[in-house]
Amino acid sequence: MATASLFHDLLHWLDYVGVAVFALSGALAAARKGLDPFGFMVIGVATGVGGGTLRDILLDLGPVFWVTSPNFLAVAVLSALFGWFIAQHLKSRLSLLVWADAVGLAIFAVLGAEKAYAAHSHWAVVAVMGMVSATFGGLVRDILCNELPLLLHKEIYALAALAGAVTYFVGVSVFDATVASLFAGAAVCFLIRAAAIRYNLALPAYKQK
Amino acid sequence: MATASLFHDLLHWLDYVGVAVFALSGALAAARKGLDPFGFMVIGVATGVGGGTLRDILLDLGPVFWVTSPNFLAVAVLSALFGWFIAQHLKSRLSLLVWADAVGLAIFAVLGAEKAYAAHSHWAVVAVMGMVSATFGGLVRDILCNELPLLLHKEIYALAALAGAVTYFVGVSVFDATVASLFAGAAVCFLIRAAAIRYNLALPAYKQK
Amino acid sequence: MATASLFHDLLHWLDYVGVAVFALSGALAAARKGLDPFGFMVIGVATGVGGGTLRDILLDLGPVFWVTSPNFLAVAVLSALFGWFIAQHLKSRLSLLVWADAVGLAIFAVLGAEKAYAAHSHWAVVAVMGMVSATFGGLVRDILCNELPLLLHKEIYALAALAGAVTYFVGVSVFDATVASLFAGAAVCFLIRAAAIRYNLALPAYKQK
Repeated sequence: MATASLFHDLLHWLDYVGVAVFALSGALAAARKGLDPFGFMVIGVATGVGGGTLRDILLDLGPVFWVTSPNFLAVAVLSALFGWFIAQHLKSRLSLLVWADAVGLAIFAVLGAEKAYAAHSHWAVVAVMGMVSATFGGLVRDILCNELPLLLHKEIYALAALAGAVTYFVGVSVFDATVASLFAGAAVCFLIRAAAIRYNLALPAYKQK
Repeated sequence: MATASLFHDLLHWLDYVGVAVFALSGALAAARKGLDPFGFMVIGVATGVGGGTLRDILLDLGPVFWVTSPNFLAVAVLSALFGWFIAQHLKSRLSLLVWADAVGLAIFAVLGAEKAYAAHSHWAVVAVMGMVSATFGGLVRDILCNELPLLLHKEIYALAALAGAVTYFVGVSVFDATVASLFAGAAVCFLIRAAAIRYNLALPAYKQK
Repeated sequence: MATASLFHDLLHWLDYVGVAVFALSGALAAARKGLDPFGFMVIGVATGVGGGTLRDILLDLGPVFWVTSPNFLAVAVLSALFGWFIAQHLKSRLSLLVWADAVGLAIFAVLGAEKAYAAHSHWAVVAVMGMVSATFGGLVRDILCNELPLLLHKEIYALAALAGAVTYFVGVSVFDATVASLFAGAAVCFLIRAAAIRYNLALPAYKQK
């Protein structure tokens, strides 16, 4: 009982953090495009809630999460405005954008996997839903800003989210460790992505012979 | 009773007008791309019903509105064909496109807000849903036609839709004036957008110091 | 009873074939972009299941088909990996991409129409749903790969899907011939699209006078 409640509080807080960091990455993308404060908010909200929105639609979980919990909109708006104020003072907006995106990727990979798992989905669906939740917000951001999606950069990206989601699934279904699995999955995703950013890790690309 | 029925008739007619003007804006975008008549219809229908479709999906209101009321498809197709015939005779297709879009923006801002309000949503959700309904059709149009979305132009756009949706919410929840609030919200949105088009009104954009 | 069961088996197998050929077209698009094997899988899955996913969301048919039948994910992944291995050995990847897309278009046009018909939709909704199911996966592929969507090429494309869906509707509602209508609809769509590819058939495009 206490564990279940702790677990749900934790999910809730992680969700806020994930929305906030993705919204921040959206604001920094808006700064790169020279948009106005309202543009920061629009891109910030779309990036922050995009992944979870698609997840809720695909799983058909009723109205999407921010319709039932509008606090998430406030978090995204505040985070986007924070991005407006700090963007001026950054040496590299792109670098913070990429790292905020990496933190959001890790959080939404496990949260997406958790929602699919809680809906009794097949493990492959759990894995794909973790990946979709983690990558879709950033994809919307990059399409709106007309940038090459991080998803299509050569450094490992969606694969990290998949690894995090699978780690969560294994942890929770084999070891029945809900809280530990959340952290383990997020850590696996973040470390793979961080290594990919830091060392330009990439899978071997297709080459026409 | 009579008022409720008048109100629903009004919503219905506004919906047709909104779909028609957005479909027209889609057809004019298709003209700029030199598409064939069927391309006009595809872009016209996608633009005309896009915003309301996303609204119905996010609120989880069952099958989207044009599945249950296919008349809207006919309206969009006829409007797109009308666009095909008049495009030749226009001095400025872009100008009519932008003004048709402004009318659609105003109508869908209040209709989106109304649907969210009728579903007992929080005021922030009412506001965001007005904005999403009003801007998404045009966004689909601009992405399909590979134009810079009006949403990202520097003139005020999504903010006008937000103002219209908030006006509707205040009118209906504080003053309990359903019909008057619809017109007031649409007028606020249209006037802000019209001023933005006419005088190039823009919020101060982000500038790297 | 036997016919109904045959019919449902057929639908199921056609669905697998449609997902597989669209996933293959996605993999070939990934090859043209020089992505890594995981990128092949991401684009392959998005292309393979994209159209059916939007169809299920618009009709509000509960969780989308691959959430309830994750086998489709496996088919898409395997087909994308198959694309990775054969892409090297092709003289023209673009040509196979376009033909795989044509086969998928024909299959999803009738399957999309069938799902809408089974949900008791109006004939116009049946027609549009066939077109949406048939074209959306390829549209996602082309937007992700930043190519001009086949949908907007001048050769006949979405119109072929519409013709296939209408053929299916007429066959099933007028002649009550479920299996024959599936094949007739798919054949009509494929033949129109094949003629369009082979002979560059196009409707007369809009020209500014």
